[in-house]
Amino acid sequence: MQLYNYFRSSASYRVRIALALKGLSYEYVAVHIVKNEHLAEGIRALLPNQLVPSLVLDDADADGERSVLTQSLAILEYLEETHPAPPLLPPDPVGRARVRAIALDIACEIHPIDNLRVLRYLVKEMGISEDDKNRWYRHWVETGLETVERQLAGHPATGRFCHGDTPGLADCVLVPQIHNAQRMSCRLDHVPTVMRIFEACMAESAFASTQASACPDAA
Amino acid sequence: MQLYNYFRSSASYRVRIALALKGLSYEYVAVHIVKNEHLAEGIRALLPNQLVPSLVLDDADADGERSVLTQSLAILEYLEETHPAPPLLPPDPVGRARVRAIALDIACEIHPIDNLRVLRYLVKEMGISEDDKNRWYRHWVETGLETVERQLAGHPATGRFCHGDTPGLADCVLVPQIHNAQRMSCRLDHVPTVMRIFEACMAESAFASTQASACPDAA
Repeated sequence: MQLYNYFRSSASYRVRIALALKGLSYEYVAVHIVKNEHLAEGIRALLPNQLVPSLVLDDADADGERSVLTQSLAILEYLEETHPAPPLLPPDPVGRARVRAIALDIACEIHPIDNLRVLRYLVKEMGISEDDKNRWYRHWVETGLETVERQLAGHPATGRFCHGDTPGLADCVLVPQIHNAQRMSCRLDHVPTVMRIFEACMAESAFASTQASACPDAA
Repeated sequence: MQLYNYFRSSASYRVRIALALKGLSYEYVAVHIVKNEHLAEGIRALLPNQLVPSLVLDDADADGERSVLTQSLAILEYLEETHPAPPLLPPDPVGRARVRAIALDIACEIHPIDNLRVLRYLVKEMGISEDDKNRWYRHWVETGLETVERQLAGHPATGRFCHGDTPGLADCVLVPQIHNAQRMSCRLDHVPTVMRIFEACMAESAFASTQASACPDAA
């Protein structure tokens, strides 16, 4: 498998964590999105939605075409279905719905609003100042994580990690968001359960060894 | 089951379509989000992320507490797992990943950026004019749907619907987005495959009977 990704992309980091948790090896292909490499001619077919990451499978058909999977959450579900151990989702449907909802509270309600192309559009097309752009960024992270905190704090299913005592799909999405929040100096003292879980994750090699600063393209 | 939702919320509409496709009955509970009813004291516990929809199950525990499912895509996956027929996802993992990716290209990359609370923040906190707000809205819909069109047009798995000849999870997400696009006068002539599938869906009663204008709170 080849992972087309960017060290600082948190959607990419989600997939790197999941691949590490499941012990799967892959070729790391760096795509520098700040330099717009994702829009280059040769790469477009491998990033059909012009976003990282994409996972290119080793399943070449008669024409040599390989499957290209996009959207980090769809890739996580694919990995879960094809490599079920260790599981990223609990066995019961209500628990699975809870884990997916926490992941989506980040992946839908925080991350896309603060995505690079949205920030660029705010500044270039809407004429927003750098200060206001940063205020925008922090607003969605800080209020969004407050929502996540509410789902986690005091919930009987919350354990050492978002759901129970083994890392799962929600943790794969939470941790990259906290790295972004720290980089952008967001307030985090109002989400103690989130931060406790973040620390527990970062003590695991699957999370630490795949973080942005450890990536081949981080230099 | 009770569905806490709002007629014009496209995330709510996704779930109404899925419930109809699977032939499941439920109590429709209207929450008027433009009037901020989702923030009212009595309703907050049932909408823990302060967003519609939520699905309240009939599974009361010893304390009479029922499970509250949030995030429309997590609810769709729950319905698929607990009521597998008719399926909303194909049987093969690569096909499932494709359907989920199309759904996420809408649910992550278009919808949250144009969500009511984001538009409100743009105007109230960023000082954006109504005209610029509408330009913002249309930009993310029009470019986002272009991405979806690219995934659908000419792909061998695209059929009468997004994936094959029966409606599925991606269609549940696509159709509400097109209703929004039409209401906001977005350009749609550049996405002919998307619009062909939209028309095919709207010829099905599961999509037509659950649309905003047919909802009890639409008046």
